[in-house]
Amino acid sequence: MNIVLIGSGNVATVLGKKIQIAGHDILQVAGRNEAACAALSTVLKCSFTINWNFINQQADLYIIAVADTALEHIHAQINLGKKIVVHTAGSVSKEVLHKVSKNYGVLYPVQSLHKEKEVLPEIPFLVDGNSNDTIALLKDFAETISDKVRVAADEPRKKIHLAAVLVNNFTNHLYALTEDFCKNEQLDFKILLPLIEETAERIKLYSPADVQTGPAVRGDETTINMQLGLLQQYPPLIKLYELFSESIRSMHKNKNPG
Amino acid sequence: MNIVLIGSGNVATVLGKKIQIAGHDILQVAGRNEAACAALSTVLKCSFTINWNFINQQADLYIIAVADTALEHIHAQINLGKKIVVHTAGSVSKEVLHKVSKNYGVLYPVQSLHKEKEVLPEIPFLVDGNSNDTIALLKDFAETISDKVRVAADEPRKKIHLAAVLVNNFTNHLYALTEDFCKNEQLDFKILLPLIEETAERIKLYSPADVQTGPAVRGDETTINMQLGLLQQYPPLIKLYELFSESIRSMHKNKNPG
Repeated sequence: MNIVLIGSGNVATVLGKKIQIAGHDILQVAGRNEAACAALSTVLKCSFTINWNFINQQADLYIIAVADTALEHIHAQINLGKKIVVHTAGSVSKEVLHKVSKNYGVLYPVQSLHKEKEVLPEIPFLVDGNSNDTIALLKDFAETISDKVRVAADEPRKKIHLAAVLVNNFTNHLYALTEDFCKNEQLDFKILLPLIEETAERIKLYSPADVQTGPAVRGDETTINMQLGLLQQYPPLIKLYELFSESIRSMHKNKNPG
Repeated sequence: MNIVLIGSGNVATVLGKKIQIAGHDILQVAGRNEAACAALSTVLKCSFTINWNFINQQADLYIIAVADTALEHIHAQINLGKKIVVHTAGSVSKEVLHKVSKNYGVLYPVQSLHKEKEVLPEIPFLVDGNSNDTIALLKDFAETISDKVRVAADEPRKKIHLAAVLVNNFTNHLYALTEDFCKNEQLDFKILLPLIEETAERIKLYSPADVQTGPAVRGDETTINMQLGLLQQYPPLIKLYELFSESIRSMHKNKNPG
């Protein structure tokens, strides 16, 4: 398919690369940030524009990968008639595009995308559209770049986006707090990397609740109190430690008597 | 080296396999649980005993991999003279062994070990001993089964164990709460697996604080409030969501103005 990418950030860059690898043609990058558009057009070997009036009209699919706040106003700037237009946001309704085109939908990558990363991750997609034809076309397109594609309306997509915040943003912040703790205590955070990888890897095989370990699930109050003592200088970690321990106990109280 | 394993659970099993792969000889498994000792001795093709009086006296190294609570009493049951004896616990002082032998120490695997898992993970080790000779011997031994070995006394080892609880036990519980949420909302938790893997993988390349994304670091109160609304039926997730969002804002307030 012939594609125009609207946006020049992390999502536009990574999707653009994936789409080209799958054999599609990126005709143009369009956006507000001239330097970023120029850089991305160099990577993708295509033209670019920073003027909405000059958006190439020959594409089969227009992918709008801009900030959620910019999406709310996009209908005042771009009209693409009957062209198929999608946005890539987890928590924004597809209806934000209903004045942009008669045929619109969503192509939401369930992944954390960073343009600096050279190795492109596997990207599951949730697709949606305002008609069955659009949904079918977007599903077929997504399946050319991913083998994990599901159709999901606005509400379930928002919930998956929330779940992604929990397992990605919050997990990453736990890593960041732990790295800070290690730095302050002169410990080598990197010694934890194999454990962090194993924790993520094993839930491909096991349900996480079935492989829960640690002092809280054992009811080991001695270790819990000792560890809380070590966190005295780290108030956010104390609160998280208490909340996690309470929640682990509560989830497992009927499974692990004693 | 010739080794006796005392214990027959997850740690004894995985360490036993790793130690054999490195070319050492496991002479015997000793423990309280006859069925588990018999099973492990079959896996390791060695003898076993459930009688402390029959512990093989010919080994170079005795590895005690039992529960923390059992470690506290081990000195009343086992005396190994001058043999080198270690325990494998993150949060127990090496001094718990000072009545067991004149030469003692710690061999702490910084990893989550599950005997059911066929693929053995990479295991960093923290080693300690009551003399420089013992430390040197244990470091050399650990380096035959791992290329990540550090010497660490009781206090830094306890802190690394705490850090491991944060990135392993708490992260795993976040996964478990998210899986429950997905089940209740009829969403496919497995669509999150590539994202979970990417979140863990990328911190090999980047400091986690540098790759923080999500509504909290963007200051996107609209999405935060919408997502809190979706969590109304999940009190532990509401509290964690609020605490993480507050902590993310606090860590990044000086880095991301606006």
